[in-house]
Amino acid sequence: MNRILVIGAAGMVGRKLLQSLVKDGSLGGTRITQATLHDIVAPQPPPNAPFQVRSLASDLSLAGEADKLVAERPSVIFHLAAIVSGEAEADFEKGYRINLDATRQLFEAIRKVGAGYKPRVVFTSSIAVFGAPFPEAIDDEFLSAPLTSYGTQKAVAELLLSDYTRRGFFDGIGIRLPTVCVRPGKPNRAASGFFSGIIREPLNGQEAVLPVSEDVRHWHASPRAAVGFLLHAAALAGEGERIGPRRNLTMPGLSVTVAEQIAALRRVAGDAPARLIRREPDPAIMRIVKGWPENFDAQRARELGFRADTSFEEIIRIYMEEELPA
Amino acid sequence: MNRILVIGAAGMVGRKLLQSLVKDGSLGGTRITQATLHDIVAPQPPPNAPFQVRSLASDLSLAGEADKLVAERPSVIFHLAAIVSGEAEADFEKGYRINLDATRQLFEAIRKVGAGYKPRVVFTSSIAVFGAPFPEAIDDEFLSAPLTSYGTQKAVAELLLSDYTRRGFFDGIGIRLPTVCVRPGKPNRAASGFFSGIIREPLNGQEAVLPVSEDVRHWHASPRAAVGFLLHAAALAGEGERIGPRRNLTMPGLSVTVAEQIAALRRVAGDAPARLIRREPDPAIMRIVKGWPENFDAQRARELGFRADTSFEEIIRIYMEEELPA
Repeated sequence: MNRILVIGAAGMVGRKLLQSLVKDGSLGGTRITQATLHDIVAPQPPPNAPFQVRSLASDLSLAGEADKLVAERPSVIFHLAAIVSGEAEADFEKGYRINLDATRQLFEAIRKVGAGYKPRVVFTSSIAVFGAPFPEAIDDEFLSAPLTSYGTQKAVAELLLSDYTRRGFFDGIGIRLPTVCVRPGKPNRAASGFFSGIIREPLNGQEAVLPVSEDVRHWHASPRAAVGFLLHAAALAGEGERIGPRRNLTMPGLSVTVAEQIAALRRVAGDAPARLIRREPDPAIMRIVKGWPENFDAQRARELGFRADTSFEEIIRIYMEEELPA
Repeated sequence: MNRILVIGAAGMVGRKLLQSLVKDGSLGGTRITQATLHDIVAPQPPPNAPFQVRSLASDLSLAGEADKLVAERPSVIFHLAAIVSGEAEADFEKGYRINLDATRQLFEAIRKVGAGYKPRVVFTSSIAVFGAPFPEAIDDEFLSAPLTSYGTQKAVAELLLSDYTRRGFFDGIGIRLPTVCVRPGKPNRAASGFFSGIIREPLNGQEAVLPVSEDVRHWHASPRAAVGFLLHAAALAGEGERIGPRRNLTMPGLSVTVAEQIAALRRVAGDAPARLIRREPDPAIMRIVKGWPENFDAQRARELGFRADTSFEEIIRIYMEEELPA
């Protein structure tokens, strides 16, 4: 019997995770009986779920809120909630409160249930735990030396996750997601927004701005691959021996340049959409992006069965399948 | 004008740091005007200090205590307070409360003073931030993947120290001390106690137990070298450019085997003391010690001017000079 708790369920990855769970009706081979969806605003329950769905809104960083969420002893907990990098940098206190304190309070709430309660915990970390200078490809032995408060908060949560798992309080896996691309929806003001924008806007007949040069290389995964990572992590969480004491894994992804993204767009959708990409270099964004990792060697995750998208064309086709009207 | 705050001043390293400050009367070329000594029990003020000394006792993990300590705006803060590895493993809550929460509350108290207050903060971290498997020598690029709660707490504090420094709230340096040897005083029950015991007890005419084989290799610094690291870190803290964003440094040390320790004891004190070492293998201690690092390449710290002891004979002579009656 699987009782599932999804924290941060109103976000894009959370919604797509729910769609997948509703479609399958099971997780790791076990039928789902109940899903609790939590976020700072009440998540929309998915239609036609073959299991009971409860939707809750609260501020997880407030004392006692995490305890309420784990009181029903969910067997699998997905912790996706976070404020993003830009906001954590702009608002120091909020970043630490949401990304660190709320995560620790969740871990503490689980520990305090006691009586043999030991759920699977899948935590979404970030490649922001790494800071420059980088090698050509960041491998599983590369140190966490973040250069942002967001990256610091995620790196701290990773350390706690490993220690709480080692002590037997829960069975945790942290997964460092690549930049999710193509993100559906409206353009946002994240510095990384253009990676999705230069594909999404042209496919919707709209102009997109490219603020960096085409030789910028970055690390991507489709929303479908990201959901696949979460599901696979949940299914793996029992296999402590295979994973070992280092419970945080860099997920596999695709390392492509902007030029390769645009070439893939041409191959998938012809030349017309690519003409809607307007080059407008933005020194501020160029400077931020320069500090980002370009490529990884995610050997441990691959060996544990995590699978990336196979090409950027596939990433574009997934967006078209899931988001564009036929 | 230097106002100094030493947190954890009642411990062995804290006491020796104070002796050195009293002798010099200055720190980093600036005269010391006041020293506040803090610990969970009131530290003994050193005699004949050429500056004002205040001794305080409180539990730093309690709300508001850190704020009281920084209210007088010390210009240099040494944060040495911690509970040791064994206790942090035995008492999960106490370990996180003292080693993580109290440290964070200190950092927060400093941040909240505001108004341009930016003290130098010297934090004693530990080689326990590293976890096996180890390379032959652990270099400055090796990842923090601790295998104890103590190591986790120190690794988290290191991340916070770097982020608070990057944000400009203080000017921090974390120093990862080698195992301090020869510790003065009575034998203690720490698993690492024998490294000091096999030197100290024989030099005092007493039998010492060696619970591991003589080929065990470990990483040592004398108390004098440890105090030297603290003083050098305090003097360096202004040189942000030279240190860079990674503010935690593995200190240099001496990598020696137990056999080499005993050979050094014979060279310094003749054969008689070494005969007082009784071999009594203890499988539990052997298992713990097997997981410890043996050797480091502390290049960054060396380049920044931190200096280790030059030989284990020197380490023994320092103990004899400082602790044995002439």
